[in-house]
This record gives sequence, structure tokens and C-alpha cells, in this order.
Amino acid sequence: MAEEFTGVCLRVNLTTGQLTTETYSSILMRRYLGGWGLIGYHLLREVPPQCDPLGPENKLIVTSGIMTGQPLAGGGRHMIGGKSPLTGGFGAGECGGFFGAELKRAGFTSIVFEGISPTPVYLWVHDGQAELRPAEHLWGHEALETEQQIRDELGDRLVRVAQIGPAGERLARIANIIHDLNRAVGRTGMGALMGSKRLKAIAVRGKQRPSTADPERISELGKWFRDHYKETGSAVFSTLATLRMVRNNNNFGGLPTRNFQEGVFEGFEKLSAEHQLETVTVGRDTCFGCPIRCKWVVKIEDDKYPVRPEYGGPEYETTGSFGSLCGIDNNYVTCHANELCNAYGLDTIGMGSVIAVAMECYERGLLTREQTDGLELVFGNADAVIELIHRTARREGLGHVLAEGSARLAEWIGQGAERYTVTIKKQDLAMHDPRIKYGHGLGIAVSPTGADHMHSLHDNAYQTVGGLAEIEPLGVIEPLPFDDLSPAKVRMVRQVIIWRTLDNLTGICMFHSWTVQQKVDLINAVTGWSTSALELWQASERAYNMARAFNTLAGLSAADDRLPERVMEPLPEGAVAGKVIPREVFAEALVKLYAMMGWDPVTAAPTRIKLEELDIPWVADLLEGKKAQDVMRERPEGEGDAFG
Amino acid sequence: MAEEFTGVCLRVNLTTGQLTTETYSSILMRRYLGGWGLIGYHLLREVPPQCDPLGPENKLIVTSGIMTGQPLAGGGRHMIGGKSPLTGGFGAGECGGFFGAELKRAGFTSIVFEGISPTPVYLWVHDGQAELRPAEHLWGHEALETEQQIRDELGDRLVRVAQIGPAGERLARIANIIHDLNRAVGRTGMGALMGSKRLKAIAVRGKQRPSTADPERISELGKWFRDHYKETGSAVFSTLATLRMVRNNNNFGGLPTRNFQEGVFEGFEKLSAEHQLETVTVGRDTCFGCPIRCKWVVKIEDDKYPVRPEYGGPEYETTGSFGSLCGIDNNYVTCHANELCNAYGLDTIGMGSVIAVAMECYERGLLTREQTDGLELVFGNADAVIELIHRTARREGLGHVLAEGSARLAEWIGQGAERYTVTIKKQDLAMHDPRIKYGHGLGIAVSPTGADHMHSLHDNAYQTVGGLAEIEPLGVIEPLPFDDLSPAKVRMVRQVIIWRTLDNLTGICMFHSWTVQQKVDLINAVTGWSTSALELWQASERAYNMARAFNTLAGLSAADDRLPERVMEPLPEGAVAGKVIPREVFAEALVKLYAMMGWDPVTAAPTRIKLEELDIPWVADLLEGKKAQDVMRERPEGEGDAFG
Repeated sequence: MAEEFTGVCLRVNLTTGQLTTETYSSILMRRYLGGWGLIGYHLLREVPPQCDPLGPENKLIVTSGIMTGQPLAGGGRHMIGGKSPLTGGFGAGECGGFFGAELKRAGFTSIVFEGISPTPVYLWVHDGQAELRPAEHLWGHEALETEQQIRDELGDRLVRVAQIGPAGERLARIANIIHDLNRAVGRTGMGALMGSKRLKAIAVRGKQRPSTADPERISELGKWFRDHYKETGSAVFSTLATLRMVRNNNNFGGLPTRNFQEGVFEGFEKLSAEHQLETVTVGRDTCFGCPIRCKWVVKIEDDKYPVRPEYGGPEYETTGSFGSLCGIDNNYVTCHANELCNAYGLDTIGMGSVIAVAMECYERGLLTREQTDGLELVFGNADAVIELIHRTARREGLGHVLAEGSARLAEWIGQGAERYTVTIKKQDLAMHDPRIKYGHGLGIAVSPTGADHMHSLHDNAYQTVGGLAEIEPLGVIEPLPFDDLSPAKVRMVRQVIIWRTLDNLTGICMFHSWTVQQKVDLINAVTGWSTSALELWQASERAYNMARAFNTLAGLSAADDRLPERVMEPLPEGAVAGKVIPREVFAEALVKLYAMMGWDPVTAAPTRIKLEELDIPWVADLLEGKKAQDVMRERPEGEGDAFG
Repeated sequence: MAEEFTGVCLRVNLTTGQLTTETYSSILMRRYLGGWGLIGYHLLREVPPQCDPLGPENKLIVTSGIMTGQPLAGGGRHMIGGKSPLTGGFGAGECGGFFGAELKRAGFTSIVFEGISPTPVYLWVHDGQAELRPAEHLWGHEALETEQQIRDELGDRLVRVAQIGPAGERLARIANIIHDLNRAVGRTGMGALMGSKRLKAIAVRGKQRPSTADPERISELGKWFRDHYKETGSAVFSTLATLRMVRNNNNFGGLPTRNFQEGVFEGFEKLSAEHQLETVTVGRDTCFGCPIRCKWVVKIEDDKYPVRPEYGGPEYETTGSFGSLCGIDNNYVTCHANELCNAYGLDTIGMGSVIAVAMECYERGLLTREQTDGLELVFGNADAVIELIHRTARREGLGHVLAEGSARLAEWIGQGAERYTVTIKKQDLAMHDPRIKYGHGLGIAVSPTGADHMHSLHDNAYQTVGGLAEIEPLGVIEPLPFDDLSPAKVRMVRQVIIWRTLDNLTGICMFHSWTVQQKVDLINAVTGWSTSALELWQASERAYNMARAFNTLAGLSAADDRLPERVMEPLPEGAVAGKVIPREVFAEALVKLYAMMGWDPVTAAPTRIKLEELDIPWVADLLEGKKAQDVMRERPEGEGDAFG
């Protein structure tokens, strides 16, 4: 290769306090790119897949993407992964904001945390340097307080802080890692993993521009985006942002309502983007380098549901989870719940969902008033929702169980309560009902991280010719109806879920409608490679399959790739009322997707030949029982010198 | 899709004389592009795969690629296909020159000839018009004479003529279709197929520029190539052209010598590019729009081996076939043999190879002097070579058998003579010995058209980092040794043979080192699509698999995907002396390649899931026994209106 584009990995042994750095070779970077690719690389080689996710053998991997920190729109994202305390498999989440860019500007591609610190600590990373600092005085504090204290003691207001709140400290499996007070790596319980390591926070500050092979080209593309994004699919995010989906999904008949029992919510107007703009929105925030400004800042001066602007405002997912899903038509409540989750470090989707499950169980008599410590846990009871967030963060009463997430709550309740959970791999569905988009259902059924809207086809636009433009370069040139599950639809789902993985590997925000070609151009400009959509596709498929392989090694199987019973029931009202996803058809589509993906129909693992096709035979060796240390000893040429 | 990019197919029923036109829809064009894609499309849907290739049910499909006729370098190629009289399977060849561009400029994407004409005819195509004209007066004539007569009677010196010579008329299975007197669609016996239809020639003339979505971009790319090709891999073709391979392959120890018994030829200097330049080269010809000028024109005023410049000059393949392969160290002979083949319409590779096999059989006593009609058929006997070309074209004596090709010659000889043939699927190897490039061996073993150097990895450059630049965008980022057959090499072979198919689908000459990105740009500029390397890769894989599927339906199987015994023997001298391709390793690599390609290990056919992945489930229907007419009735949306 003409250019060398390497990476730097900071390795932090929390048990010993030792910090070391390693270089990712150019070949390694080209093969794995970042995000899931690097997380999978470390997980498969270093973490015993059967280990206790909250024990010392698990690792917390903080990583960037190829584009993270580049001075242009949509390059603000980073990813955090490890074995998931929630799903027991491949865990990972990603978020925007400023932390990822700051990490890159501090000189690091990724940080691997291993072991468990004897006492609470935080990591301070700045300009190629890093040190562990005591954090006993921060333990137990909420996010805003913690961030202020860290900035104070480091004497720099521009330090970017990733942290856990009290929920993560208490190992809540729905705990998140919160950044900049309002950007969450929410899913798969990464907050609990961080808490288990007694790592309170990661503070970063960096002033060096990340290496770029062709800075002029990057500037040019950045300028193009600033000038043109309003003519692309990104435009909607600059107007009604994610909250526009409240109305859209309600119109389609699939706004998750009262724990997915319904798809139309009578109070949806009060949760809508338009209402949010009129009533509580005081400004618009953005991520590193981004002109879209899709983050709506909220301020509410109210005795009962106050909101401070520092904590941002709720996205669609949060609004759905605490709004329609819990039967609540009050955006003061969704905004306040959002603040509490950000302050306590709780995943808003997981929190709202576990409350909705508890509500349904309460209404059905499976949960008693005694068990709720006196709360009248019916849909629409806003005060109960707020109260349960507090209790979950503190692990008080029922909150102690809610902290474990819906699936474990149902186990605790017993009496067949699992039929009211809406999870895949123990992770709750985001606010996208598969009943109005069957392809989405297929995608989340197989997503390595469980029900995960970041890794599926959740846009109904692909049903129309215009909406196809984005995916035509992936070879999907004919629109298909939302309820289709033919081989052609399976193929469409495959193309989309693999390609979408690229955004994770690169750190490009999916709200940025860069075309396939522009993504190729961006990556070439940064790396100096002459890559192609084909090579990037392979890298995406590679990372996706590494995550699947880790799941197999961790004990997950084909039985875990299924939709929850709830969404196999018909919806009572709305555009798809009475319609069901035909079980046999869905099962066949799943089998088809397995085959198209190159997964074994029995073990659900990627086949050796697929892994060889993806140039990662060492993953097949692991699946066939070879020990990770032996595989590492034989690692291929290009990776041989990756770690000194 | 934003733009409509359609195609026009001219259908010529030779039995009835009826001519009709049909439109290829935009979706169809995007799915199949051209070349093998359109040939496979017509073959699979219209030709009974078990039919007699020389009977009325077979069709002759003349087609262009997406780029054919565009005013820039390397867009001069077209392809001709049908069920092969030589292999019995998918038959197709391609060539450069001016015919393809002229066809496009006459307003046609392709021509499908069906039936058999009661009397010899030729087709005259010009500016959207077409007519069949009598050709009794041309029947039996050699190429130069025929072309002159056609131009005379059409009154236009710029008419481009594709024609068969006496060999094709006499159904020689190694007959070619010759264009511009010196560009041959040489392989798989397309000349015999054309002869069986009593179609002597196709004359075309067109003045309309083919449709181009972005003519300025095409001009820009064309200019870039003219200005820069000498800095690319194309440079070598502008200096020593294909003949440089005489010296290269001899140095590598794999210049096919005396019927592949040896890999080093003592007389190679006399066949070398340098010698050819010094002794007989009088000028340099080129193809439509191309600045490289790789075609060396030869003139020899000699009583015994005269050559007229109209017939061009021999390429490397021809020089190897009539030179080292027959033990002849005289470039007058190779040049004269080239002229004879072009005049008679014979494939130079097939002709030289069948003579070499006959020579070895003669030397080994399997062929008697009686059978050779008195010729002393030993290696190095130039006069015998020349004489046999005449006799083959006339089907006289031994020539009657030679016209059938090596495999059938060996059957006729009996006594185990097949062990001296060097064929795959009855087609002779081109002048690339797999023993110096194992990956090439793998590629030709599975090529749907039999041993075909156009569809394999025949460049040893991929063993070095520099040589990889071209294929890095295909995800092949580490060099591998020539004798490697590991899964990584299998993967490299797969990437290359699939991607190389794109040149066929587009009509881009493989001597043009357009990068992967430039090919994407070129196709977008012509079509107005926003395609990607990924989509083009899929189109290539699609076409490749359609060809494989036709083979299965025609009765070919995994047993036909094998290297000839001769190349499994060690070479006696040179750089790889004594080295053998390990049989088990090669067999394993083949199994691996099947799996990676998505082919059934038993039937050798593409699996249904692979065909669904490639968006052509109708091909799987055919393989599962559905009748072509039923499949056509159910054809998908986008193709529904392809034919009125």
C-alpha cells in the first residue's frame, strides 16, 4: 500500500494500574477499520467468551472509527464494547458528541481497559499522555456534578467526559455510559461493565489534528456537505429531527404504545416534534463538526418535571419509551425522564421498556401492589414512571429488579411474564415496530447486539423508488413492499444491515446522507488508500461476522435469533390493524438470511468458508475450538507486528 | 432510478428472414450490463441447453458492453456468444477493433440470431436499420476478399465487417469470427456456430453517438487516460505489447513449449517482442478510441511465408501457439500462420494447440505417417504447421479431424492420446502455464468457457506489493507467492476472476489500467446511475454464475473443472524445474473455491441461495427443472416490459 495509516491503542490494566501503548499496523487498520471491527478483534482474541461479563476477564474497549475526529460533519462518533452484561454476547454501543473526536485528537485510536481497579478511578487522557486518577470522591455522584468536578480538578473546561452514573456503579444491566451529559452509549449494558471495573470516567483532551492523507479533499467534502446537506436525506434531521418519527410511526400504525400492545397512541400529538418545538425546546445542540444540529435542547422550569438544558433533550427513542410505550402523553414527563436517565446513567430505551413491561404485568395482575412498594403501576401513571427511574438507579425495591432489564424482570415475576417482554437477546426493542416493517424485524432478529435499531433496515423509504436512491449502489434497484419477506427482501435486508455496519466502523453518523461514493472518497482522503465500496462492504461484513462469532463462542445460538411473541400478534388499530407477520414466512426468511449470510443453520455461527472469504480464517479457528492464545501466536503476517 | 438507460436488441430470425427489435429496460440493463450478462440472459431463457450447438435451436448472440462505443480508450470491445460447439457449454468470446463501437453507433446494443438461413446470407446494419442480404457469392471466400466485396457492394469503405471464413463455413469447431480482418472472437468455436446458421457476415455502419448521461465527464476521463496511460499498467502495452510475455514467461520457466512438455524454449529470442520489432513490424494499429496502439502490423515479403499488413500481426498467444508450442523459432512462420488463420477464420490458439498435440502423438508413434498424409509431423517442422492450417480450413485429410480441436483429435487417435491434450472443457489452454502461477490454474479450471485466459488471474504481478495496487480495492491487501493455494489465495483468485468479468460486461479492454474507481466513474458517466464497485461486483458475479448455470443445464459437471494431466507433471528445466502442483492441495483449493463461489460441490451449479443473493432467482428455477418458458412468464417486474 502506498500510504501507511496506522493506529494507536492505549491499554489500561486496571488491576495493576499499568498503562501501555501498542500500534495497529496499516494492514490491521485496513482490515478492521474501527468500531465493531476493532472491538471484535480485541474481544475474540483477548476475552474468554464464557467469562462473567462483570468479572475481571471481561474488557471494556473504547474505540473510534476511521473518520472520527476528522473536521467534517458526521465524524463525531465513537463506539464502546465488551462482553455484554445484558445479552451475554457481543456488546457494543456508539454515540456522537465530542468525546470520540477528542480521543482521536489526543492521539489514540482506542483504549482497552482490562482487569478491575481496587478502588474507583478515572482515566485522564491528553495529547498522547494518559494517567489513572483516584475517583472515590466522584463515586455516587450524578453526571453533571461529576463532569464539573473533573473539569475543575483538571483545570480545563474543554475536557470531554465519558462516565457512568450511580446506575452503572451499581451494575444495573441497563446502565449506559454518558458523554457530554447527553450522548449515551446506551445499549447492551456497557455502563454496568464500566462500573464493574470501578472506572468512573474517562476524561479526554487533545489538540492534534488526526492524521489525514489528503486534508484538502476532506475540507472540500466537508464544505460540500455544509452547502448541500439540506438537499439530501439529512435535511429532515435539521427540521423535525428524530422526533418526526412520532407522527410518522403513528400514521403507519406502529408507534409502540402501552408495551407494544398497540401501534396508535391517542396522545401522540403531545409527544410530537411540533409540540416539543413549541413547548420546551430552547436551542439546538450538535456534534463535532456537524451543521445539522439535530439535538434539541430542552429547558423546563416546573416543580414536578424540571429539566436543565445541560442534560439535552429526549430523542425519538426516549420519547417513545417514556411516552407512548408507557401510555404517557406529556412531554414534560419524557423530558424529565430523559434528564434523570442521563444523570443516573441509564439507557432510556431499556428503562422505559422495563417500566412498560412492569405496567402490563401489574395491569394483568402478575405484579402486586406490594411488589411495587405501593405504586399504582398502570399505563399513563407518570409519577410512577419517574419514581421507578429513581428507584432503579438506587436499586431500591422493585427498582433493584428493573435494573436487570425486562428479560430478568420477567424471570423474577414468573407466571409466564416473559410473554410480555419485547426483547431480542434480552435487549428491548427500540421504538420501531417490525409489524410495520418486516425487513426491520428480520434485521433485529439477527443483530449480534440484540434488538438494535442501529443495525437494521428501519426506514420505510425503501418501499418507494425515490427512497431507494441511497441503496441502489448496493445493488438494490427495485422497491419492495413493507410486508414482503421474499428472497429479494431478504437480500435487501442483508445489503442494508451489512452496509450500515460501515457507519459504525468509520464513525460516520447515519443521519448524514453521504452517498456510497462519498463514503469511499472520505475514507480514501483520510487514509490514503484506494479503497472501494466493495472492500468497505467486505470490511463491514467482516466486522458483523466477528460479532456473530463471538456470540456463538459465548453460547448464543439460532434460538436467540427470533422476534418476541408480542410483535407476532396483530395490532388492534391503525394502518396495519389485524395483520400478522406470518410465522412460517418469517421463519423461512430467517433461514434464507442465514444461508445468504453464510451462517450455519444449526450453530448460527459464520461458516469457515464465509470467514475465509472475509480473510479472517483465524476466527474460524476459534470457532473450531482453537484457543485464542494459539490463534494469536499464528496471527497472519500483516497483524504480526501489530502488538509489540 | 434517476435516469433511464435502456438498450436495443435486434432479433434476426434466419429461418424466416424476419427482423424485429426489442427494448432492454433500464432495470434489465443495470442488472446484466452487457457481454456475458446479456449472452447468459438470452441463452438461459431462449436456448434449450441440451440442444445441438450446430442445430437450429442454438442462437448466436452478438452484444456490446456498457462502455462499447464511448469515445474513449478501451471502449472498443464487443462479445459474441451461444452454446459452444467446442465445449458443449456456455460459449463466448470477445474482441476489440471497431466493430463493437460501430454496432453501438448504428443504434443497437445486441443482435440475437436464431434459426438457420436456407441459403448463405449476411446482415447489413446501419443507423437503426437492418436487412439480410444474400451471401452465396461470398461463401467460400477468404476474409480479405469478403470484406472488400461487402464494402464494394454497400458502397462504403468504413463498413465494419464481422465474418466467418471457410473454416467456419465448414463448421470447424476451432473456427473463429474475424473482425476488421485481424480481431478475432477466437475461442469456444463461435465461427462454427455462425457457419451453422449460414450467416457469412455482419456488416455494420453507424453514425450516432451512443447515449451518454454525462458526455463531459466521459471526455474528461478520456483525456485523463490519453495524458496519463504511460504512468499506469497500460504502459507496457504501448512498448512491447503482448509479445513481451514471450521473454517473461520463458524467464519464469513457463513458456509453453512443445505441447507444454517444457517451459523454456531455446529459440525464444526469435519469437520475442524485440526481434519482432526489428524484423517484420511495419506499423502499429489500434482499436476504437485507443491511444495505446498495442496491435503490431506486420509485413513480410517472402516466397514461403508472406504476410500482408491487412491481416495484422500475431499477438503473444498466437506466437506461442505456432512458435514455442510447436517448437518453431521462426517469426516469419508465426506471422504467416497468423495471416492464414485470420484469412480462413481459425482460432490461432486452437489451431496451434491441435497441431502441437498431433506432433507429440506423431513423435510418440500414436499417429502414423499415413494418417498425416505423408507429413513428417515433428516439433519444429514449420512447413507441416503451415500445411495443416490449409488442410484444416479445407477439412482435407488429417485437417478434417484437426478442425474438431485437440480433444476430439485425441478421441479419434485413441490409444490414450487424451493424455497429451492440454484442454479444459475441450478447449485448449492459452499460452499461460499454471505451473508458474497456480492461481491461474484454479481460475481456468472453473472458467465457464473452458481454459480461457480472459477469465483468470494470469498476472504474476500479484505476488508483489506493487502489483497489488490494482486489486487492493477488491480487498486483496497482502501479496501471496505464485505457488500458494491457501484459502487466502483462493480468495484472491475469486476476487480477480469475478472482477475481471466486469471488463467483459462493460467492453473495457483489460489492457487499460483504469482503476476500480475509474471504472465506477466511467459507468456512471455513461448510464447516469450512481453505481458502486459493490454493485458492479455483483453484476460480474451474476453474469459469471449465469454462465456456470448454463453449463450445468447443458450437462457439464464438477468433473469438467479440472486441470489437464500434462500440467500436473513437473517441467524438466527452468525456474520451476521439477516442481509439481500438489494434486491434493489443488483439489482442496478447488473445493474451497466452489464453496466460496456458492457452488454445489456435487452438481457444480450455483446454489439457489447464491442466485437469490445475486437477485436472479429465476436461474435457480431453471436449475430446479422449471421450463424456460414458464420462468419467462413469471419474470420479475423490471424485466416484465423488456420485450414487447
